[in-house]
Amino acid sequence: MIDLTIDIEFARKVLSDFIKRELKRAGFTRAVVGLSGGVDSAVSCTLAAEALAPENILAVRMPYRTSSPQSLEHAQMVIDTLGVQSITIPITEMVEFLFAQFPDMSQVRRGNAMARARMIVLYDQSEAFKGLVVGTGNKTEILLGYTTLYGDSACALNPIGDLYKTQVRQLARDLKIPAVIVDKTPSADLWAGQTDEGELGFTYEEVDKLLFLLSDQGFSPTECIAAGFKEAFIKEVIGRMRRNYFKRIPPPIALLSSRPTSYDFPYLRDWGA
Amino acid sequence: MIDLTIDIEFARKVLSDFIKRELKRAGFTRAVVGLSGGVDSAVSCTLAAEALAPENILAVRMPYRTSSPQSLEHAQMVIDTLGVQSITIPITEMVEFLFAQFPDMSQVRRGNAMARARMIVLYDQSEAFKGLVVGTGNKTEILLGYTTLYGDSACALNPIGDLYKTQVRQLARDLKIPAVIVDKTPSADLWAGQTDEGELGFTYEEVDKLLFLLSDQGFSPTECIAAGFKEAFIKEVIGRMRRNYFKRIPPPIALLSSRPTSYDFPYLRDWGA
Repeated sequence: MIDLTIDIEFARKVLSDFIKRELKRAGFTRAVVGLSGGVDSAVSCTLAAEALAPENILAVRMPYRTSSPQSLEHAQMVIDTLGVQSITIPITEMVEFLFAQFPDMSQVRRGNAMARARMIVLYDQSEAFKGLVVGTGNKTEILLGYTTLYGDSACALNPIGDLYKTQVRQLARDLKIPAVIVDKTPSADLWAGQTDEGELGFTYEEVDKLLFLLSDQGFSPTECIAAGFKEAFIKEVIGRMRRNYFKRIPPPIALLSSRPTSYDFPYLRDWGA
Repeated sequence: MIDLTIDIEFARKVLSDFIKRELKRAGFTRAVVGLSGGVDSAVSCTLAAEALAPENILAVRMPYRTSSPQSLEHAQMVIDTLGVQSITIPITEMVEFLFAQFPDMSQVRRGNAMARARMIVLYDQSEAFKGLVVGTGNKTEILLGYTTLYGDSACALNPIGDLYKTQVRQLARDLKIPAVIVDKTPSADLWAGQTDEGELGFTYEEVDKLLFLLSDQGFSPTECIAAGFKEAFIKEVIGRMRRNYFKRIPPPIALLSSRPTSYDFPYLRDWGA
């Protein structure tokens, strides 16, 4: 019996402290959140509003021509409930020119370009509003690599990245996020009829439990089979984790010097303020 | 006497092997490089063409409305010399819509949006061409954080990220990159009259030596003063390194679980192929 229930009081305290601490460390007092209308961004935005006060939050809605009107409405519900600042900047014109040049562009290419166009808008608003971009990616999608690199995964800090999708839902209920948002079918809303679970081929309910065994508990594939998971499912999930591992690390740099610059050059703690 | 001269034969061997190895590891045989007309991207493209054969390289030129025609010509020189495949996709229309909505947008905001629009085009071509994006950022700009996050620094692998700008120039001469490219004033060409050294307030010649002491040699600021550098210059450079350190690491994720997902969840070496 795998139980992913989280201690809500503890989680809210830790996540709120995390947001305050990370902003302070970077010298900021404000935050920017992209609101998709889904539960993940609703939770991130709510946590940020609690940690920093609503007037210090800018919620950004970034619809594309074919985005569901319901997504926009759900995002507006979150904005109205929290009393955060908001702006709506469509991304349609930013990507249509690219799409027009490659008429046979696949859905994947279109979806990636859209996710990245939203990153551009969000980071531009981050600069204009002088607020850090608060991430909205959950643990399930990070581990599976079910994200667009330099797109929806781009952020300055992520308060919900260690919560599985089902745990985000649990937290969302406690945060009084409307049930219509919490209970709706998850979708990146990149094209009509797209759903996460349809695209992935399994449910969050199922995969979260397997990921918990693999990641949190350090189970081997064999141990996961013994725990009741089908071998094909385990292979599929591990395959995704491996294939998309590159999305979770900085790009490799060829090393030539004795002390590589690379991305892991340490913070200069001993150089005084 | 600080000497940044590199062993060219060794460097070419290491960098070529790096490109081959990283592509093989990821299951690719082709690469995509954004060619700006500057020396860094010319070197990356040349190294990639040597490592993988010219027909496996797609060089992408991505001019903006105000980009210097000379930049385009210099990029074309590299394409012609190497015999790589090429495509030109202007980014003007992608960013103009955003600029039009915020007429008082600063140069920095415009420059960041442009660098990120180029990332979108490059990653889209990466998917279409089935080739990995080869990075073009040098050690100087990585250490100083003189890059646009999720923009020009975005890549799948970077062969020149451990070479200071002055070392890139040395390598470029050996690679027979035209002198007009190697010797021209470095510029991101984001707006007319922009030059790297004008914006930074110091020359690459100067800063590369200081960075070498600080990074490669582990000198303290006091030791750098003893080595002949001015205190104000050292402070300015260290300030840049600290302020922009966040660009070199994945965004922090709030930790709740015993084994955090986070971006550093290890590669699954022990799970079999």
